[in-house]
Amino acid sequence: MKAVQYREIGAAPEVVTVPDPEPGPGQVLLKVTAAGVCHSDIAVMSWTADQFPYPLPLTLGHEGVGTIAALGDGVTGLETGQSVAVYGPWGCGTCVKCAEGKENYCLRAAELGINPPGLGSPGAMAEYMIVDDPRHLLPIGDLDPVRTVPLTDAGLTPYHAIKRSLPKLVPGATVVVIGTGGLGHVAIQLLRALTSARVVALDVTEDKLALARAVGAHETVLSDEHAAARIRELTGGIGAQVVLDFVGAPPTVATAGAAAAIDSDVTIVGIGGGALPVGFGALPFNTTVTAPYWGSRSELAEVLELAHAGAVDVHVETYPLDEAPLAYERLHAGKINGRAVILPQS
Amino acid sequence: MKAVQYREIGAAPEVVTVPDPEPGPGQVLLKVTAAGVCHSDIAVMSWTADQFPYPLPLTLGHEGVGTIAALGDGVTGLETGQSVAVYGPWGCGTCVKCAEGKENYCLRAAELGINPPGLGSPGAMAEYMIVDDPRHLLPIGDLDPVRTVPLTDAGLTPYHAIKRSLPKLVPGATVVVIGTGGLGHVAIQLLRALTSARVVALDVTEDKLALARAVGAHETVLSDEHAAARIRELTGGIGAQVVLDFVGAPPTVATAGAAAAIDSDVTIVGIGGGALPVGFGALPFNTTVTAPYWGSRSELAEVLELAHAGAVDVHVETYPLDEAPLAYERLHAGKINGRAVILPQS
Amino acid sequence: MKAVQYREIGAAPEVVTVPDPEPGPGQVLLKVTAAGVCHSDIAVMSWTADQFPYPLPLTLGHEGVGTIAALGDGVTGLETGQSVAVYGPWGCGTCVKCAEGKENYCLRAAELGINPPGLGSPGAMAEYMIVDDPRHLLPIGDLDPVRTVPLTDAGLTPYHAIKRSLPKLVPGATVVVIGTGGLGHVAIQLLRALTSARVVALDVTEDKLALARAVGAHETVLSDEHAAARIRELTGGIGAQVVLDFVGAPPTVATAGAAAAIDSDVTIVGIGGGALPVGFGALPFNTTVTAPYWGSRSELAEVLELAHAGAVDVHVETYPLDEAPLAYERLHAGKINGRAVILPQS
Amino acid sequence: MKAVQYREIGAAPEVVTVPDPEPGPGQVLLKVTAAGVCHSDIAVMSWTADQFPYPLPLTLGHEGVGTIAALGDGVTGLETGQSVAVYGPWGCGTCVKCAEGKENYCLRAAELGINPPGLGSPGAMAEYMIVDDPRHLLPIGDLDPVRTVPLTDAGLTPYHAIKRSLPKLVPGATVVVIGTGGLGHVAIQLLRALTSARVVALDVTEDKLALARAVGAHETVLSDEHAAARIRELTGGIGAQVVLDFVGAPPTVATAGAAAAIDSDVTIVGIGGGALPVGFGALPFNTTVTAPYWGSRSELAEVLELAHAGAVDVHVETYPLDEAPLAYERLHAGKINGRAVILPQS
Repeated sequence: MKAVQYREIGAAPEVVTVPDPEPGPGQVLLKVTAAGVCHSDIAVMSWTADQFPYPLPLTLGHEGVGTIAALGDGVTGLETGQSVAVYGPWGCGTCVKCAEGKENYCLRAAELGINPPGLGSPGAMAEYMIVDDPRHLLPIGDLDPVRTVPLTDAGLTPYHAIKRSLPKLVPGATVVVIGTGGLGHVAIQLLRALTSARVVALDVTEDKLALARAVGAHETVLSDEHAAARIRELTGGIGAQVVLDFVGAPPTVATAGAAAAIDSDVTIVGIGGGALPVGFGALPFNTTVTAPYWGSRSELAEVLELAHAGAVDVHVETYPLDEAPLAYERLHAGKINGRAVILPQS
Repeated sequence: MKAVQYREIGAAPEVVTVPDPEPGPGQVLLKVTAAGVCHSDIAVMSWTADQFPYPLPLTLGHEGVGTIAALGDGVTGLETGQSVAVYGPWGCGTCVKCAEGKENYCLRAAELGINPPGLGSPGAMAEYMIVDDPRHLLPIGDLDPVRTVPLTDAGLTPYHAIKRSLPKLVPGATVVVIGTGGLGHVAIQLLRALTSARVVALDVTEDKLALARAVGAHETVLSDEHAAARIRELTGGIGAQVVLDFVGAPPTVATAGAAAAIDSDVTIVGIGGGALPVGFGALPFNTTVTAPYWGSRSELAEVLELAHAGAVDVHVETYPLDEAPLAYERLHAGKINGRAVILPQS
Repeated sequence: MKAVQYREIGAAPEVVTVPDPEPGPGQVLLKVTAAGVCHSDIAVMSWTADQFPYPLPLTLGHEGVGTIAALGDGVTGLETGQSVAVYGPWGCGTCVKCAEGKENYCLRAAELGINPPGLGSPGAMAEYMIVDDPRHLLPIGDLDPVRTVPLTDAGLTPYHAIKRSLPKLVPGATVVVIGTGGLGHVAIQLLRALTSARVVALDVTEDKLALARAVGAHETVLSDEHAAARIRELTGGIGAQVVLDFVGAPPTVATAGAAAAIDSDVTIVGIGGGALPVGFGALPFNTTVTAPYWGSRSELAEVLELAHAGAVDVHVETYPLDEAPLAYERLHAGKINGRAVILPQS
Repeated sequence: MKAVQYREIGAAPEVVTVPDPEPGPGQVLLKVTAAGVCHSDIAVMSWTADQFPYPLPLTLGHEGVGTIAALGDGVTGLETGQSVAVYGPWGCGTCVKCAEGKENYCLRAAELGINPPGLGSPGAMAEYMIVDDPRHLLPIGDLDPVRTVPLTDAGLTPYHAIKRSLPKLVPGATVVVIGTGGLGHVAIQLLRALTSARVVALDVTEDKLALARAVGAHETVLSDEHAAARIRELTGGIGAQVVLDFVGAPPTVATAGAAAAIDSDVTIVGIGGGALPVGFGALPFNTTVTAPYWGSRSELAEVLELAHAGAVDVHVETYPLDEAPLAYERLHAGKINGRAVILPQS
């Protein structure tokens, strides 16, 4: 079969032919319908040989939707032909986090060499893929695979970030979304569907802010050194109860801290290399700051329910498998509008 | 191998010889070290043919500890010879409750015919048993299998009941434990280990109350029609923040409701046929009443941690497999002191 | 001044002249702009002399909005002329519930004879009223007093009931609202503003169901003996994650229990005399049943934020103070459409 | 009366004679029995004129216990002669935080110039003090005032820090306490009373570690550059579920971050000038870091309940009022063993 692989440190991904995979006991073979192209792949491919933790070659793609092609021995509860989304942050299944359904925080994955598809295990940018456990597949019914595939990461990650702060997102609360691109743009929609809080979106151009308003932001603010002051003005001096930073660069995390209210949540999702110092007097009292990772399986089920209800919509551009390298190039160049999705069967 | 089976409605359980089981893909074969004898087995064996939901014959035993004898195809993460406890409330693994690690509240188990071992599936009262999924096994290290096996139900069930009410069990709070037998007696120990609340135990004889004090109850009250008034006295008229009823009979649930404070929790664990009516004016405002079931896998892991720390201890009487029918007889006659445990290898 | 008083057990309320009240230290005098007429007043006036717990005569009105007329000694933070809503469930201020801001569950109010205005203390159906503590007043800014006054009970009570269940109202969850009148009709709006859950409304006529759909119910079901079965159908056999019963009569609480899913919440708000028995096997596992009371001060602030955002709207009919007795008659006769509001200054 | 005042920037505190205070409406006059001497006073007295936010002279003492001497107009619910503890973090009483009983996070205190006693308002180091609101007084019954007074800050502050993390302090969890002095030493006792988690204490000398073990630490580790590695060893490589840093200096916050597990809580209580950077990749996933402030009134009530139960004990040295300056000197010099308490009536 054909697969998109990262084969050599520093090289561009390539379309290659690899043996067709076969499912072992307890595994599932998926015929991939759609696979998402994500910024974090580009980050991974920028690492040096010393930093790179996975075996090469690596079949890319940690967002995947497909149809069940074959079931390994002992697998029940799924049927050939069913359309399913892949839950990516695979865990050991038995540590205390996995037992609570938080595989994204598996305590033993690193030690056991368990990696998500496309981030260590063979991923979704191929005609077929192996999923290690039927629990990692969620039926999507009649949802459009192409518009659904980004929800497995670009939907799930902001959903998880928002969910921790729901108790603070009461009527009258303000939530700031920094960065209105792939994840931020979904976050705004999720916030409107899940809460009655006021959503203030920050980004660096008027165009992006217009998009933010179009998908539901109540207010928009240009993301510059005045942004935090503007948020304080909008909140009567109190600041925001929740700040979600989907950029995570040094200036945005500084804005996040400066915009936060007493007893607020600041969540840094973006991988832009910024870090916000927390200590007595450094931030308003009891501002809790964290950097979460992806989301849980039950949260992905909830995101898919929102998709069924029409409450989230991701703008996508599609590419056949052979053009996946081009999609990565365009993403790197900032030319993708929304999310690029690879169609391995076309 | 030998197994203790319930073979005919209304008959006593029998020791019979059945074929040795073999693990399919994804399953585990356990050589059973110890199996607990539980009141609920007696309840199940009292049902009429119309009420009885499981196929016959049924190998009994929903509390089990054993050593890994063989791993089915595709099973990883366990080793032959390891000593493990069986997590009993098996679920589908994929519904929203299972995805959150609450298999005891699986939404599809009934529909799919998934039953706990000993309560529908072949149980632990046999030389060997099949466990459907390695996730349902928790390594117990060097814990004594005999004293540990009751923790899988008689420990886990009160732990789960207590856990929902931990936010109310602050310093100064009062928790009432009704019934100080198998589960209640463990509950008192758990409450002392997990909280700083004052524990008031109720039972019907001075002997049982003495035992309750010995395992940690701060106060004991005879369980009669004056008990609720006595609890109000002990709490300055306010009532108990939490009431756990391990009897669940009509008079005890009435006492539970009458002893509850405003904004309290009443949890009915016992299967004594009582039910407490909830409605406006029927109980103090915002008393929340529920009847939970068993516990989650992560909760069982926490109970085992308490056992490792020496914080819970269950009194046990042991019987060889051949005398399991006698153990049931004695339990039925109220002659078991603590928990009866069957040793299938002796 | 003029006031609407309940003066004699079994008699109708009367408009009488009483001395103008004056605020003591720490109290506030309010010039009442609007006062709500509530079913619970009718319940109170139906009690026998033995049941009636308050001194007579009683000035009615537990829903009030007014302007600050005078501040007692030591009161700060409010200004004469400010438009404010009265938070009704006054507590002692010092017990553990009051310290947590849950005055509606004050542990000592009964013992200390602290009563809400209109339910023991002189209420809002008068030209002026005394509020015991400035903390019990929430500025409403430019909100319309007439449309706002019902929010202090008919808005706050369902808000409080919903808030306990928010963790269960995830995408894909179903919430059933039984009774679409005063409180239920607000509850539907609140659920749509606060959650992405599917709202199924139950009532006894097609007219009422049409109104329920108009204010946001996704589905409506006739409230009869088939209702629970219909809800199971709508939920793929699983039942509702949350049931809110604003009727609370014997048949509706039975429907509530029969419609509930495993691990669900049933909340009985209505004072219709029904009570749902909870015990092992009586309901699906871990269905938690409670009957809450009114709401907290911070919850009222959140409801007012929703009003500012235009997310709740209560249909009202207005009456001058002199016609308050007529309003009660019409309410008793089922002739009020929405909420009746008395205007003490007209 | 005599009072200990900080009168001039940079000067030592002095014992002076000031007019006897009288309670206004809604206020309470307290005859002070005991007042605690706290490190944060020394921090405050080290600020420059530019940094110092309060009017001078300032009567010190933010930990106070006394007997009710007189009640202002309109005050009810307290009696002359009653022994009470002062809740220090006074708030506006009406903002959303205050309405939820979190006065320590009052959103408007700074804006309104509301300050705690001894930290802006006249404090407890005087024969008499004014308490602005009877809600800020908690009866202590027959507790010893001298041993109780430190609980109002040195007990409440760690209690509040621990309380946020109770859901993570399950059996099998590890909590690290950095700094075993005033607050840390109470924290260890609180953790043992409130949880079944394993407590690992860190400090810089063997003496201090011996004290930590004496008050309940399960393990102790020298606080140096190897400490985090040692904690990973003790936790099978996983790290601690909760880290409480009562030092808050640059090296201790670094240890805190390095010792934390995935999905853990790091709470920085100490005012040692350190700050821990949080961002993607900076710490294990979902480590949430915060710096809280003091505690809530209901939490103080819970701490007092623990004192009644004998679960916390603070070592104290007492000084007459005239020797308060000496006590500050000795504290500054590191010569106080436990907590210094001033006795204003001796």
